[in-house]
Amino acid sequence: MNIEFMREAVALACENIKKGGGPFAALIVKDGQVIARTGNTVTLSNDPTAHAEVNAIREACRKLNTFDLSGCEIYSSCEPCPMCLSAIYWAHVDRIYISGMKDDAAEAGFDDSFLYQEIGKPYSERKIPVSVLLREEGKEPFEQWKRFESKIPY
Amino acid sequence: MNIEFMREAVALACENIKKGGGPFAALIVKDGQVIARTGNTVTLSNDPTAHAEVNAIREACRKLNTFDLSGCEIYSSCEPCPMCLSAIYWAHVDRIYISGMKDDAAEAGFDDSFLYQEIGKPYSERKIPVSVLLREEGKEPFEQWKRFESKIPY
Repeated sequence: MNIEFMREAVALACENIKKGGGPFAALIVKDGQVIARTGNTVTLSNDPTAHAEVNAIREACRKLNTFDLSGCEIYSSCEPCPMCLSAIYWAHVDRIYISGMKDDAAEAGFDDSFLYQEIGKPYSERKIPVSVLLREEGKEPFEQWKRFESKIPY
Repeated sequence: MNIEFMREAVALACENIKKGGGPFAALIVKDGQVIARTGNTVTLSNDPTAHAEVNAIREACRKLNTFDLSGCEIYSSCEPCPMCLSAIYWAHVDRIYISGMKDDAAEAGFDDSFLYQEIGKPYSERKIPVSVLLREEGKEPFEQWKRFESKIPY
């Protein structure tokens, strides 16, 4: 852990506002070296998935030429939303450092806290309706995947 | 709702395996027209965030030149993982149609069910450790955001 990386992430989050992005930034560090430093670019790049942590993961993966960030740590200016937290898990990042919290984000108008609640709810109580169609056919891709010998697990 | 879009999503998920991607695909539809049809490309593009739904959202936003997919519906061959579900919320998609379920995915070796459990846990019980640093400084980006008059809400 290096507190200076967090200081940099928070400073970058402040700068990111002036650039036209959201008030979030993240760094990915491996062996003491910063591999990616990114701000939130949702409105700048017209991409609702372009949160700071997702951008950092994509950039680190590009630089390291891998989809597996084992051995890396992420310094995020704010507690990741469920999208970013899940992305961190899928990328196999080792550790998460945060500074702001989801309630700070909520108070500034972001839906992070709401999303954490929403994800745990059954479909019938969620804001965006979910319907299941062709239930049996939906199992077929997984059956084919299990039989596919050349697959690359991730 | 058009069941043929789901049939196409499931068929695309099967084809996606042969292309070297994961067994997932998604379509985004607006006013009865398919705006995006995408497979999972995590291993193909070295991007752990490149799930079918995230790819579909990115492509639909590029095509429609917006970060807001209100008025769109998503047909996913499988129940979205928490990353994709959150991305769907951030993109303001109106409705979600699914066919496979997260337990099908889990049985084929994917961490979707695990992630749904993990996200609801307190930090101390999570697999990836989370530490809070510079707690007070972390509030500053949000204070600046609240004062920033030219911000674009998203």
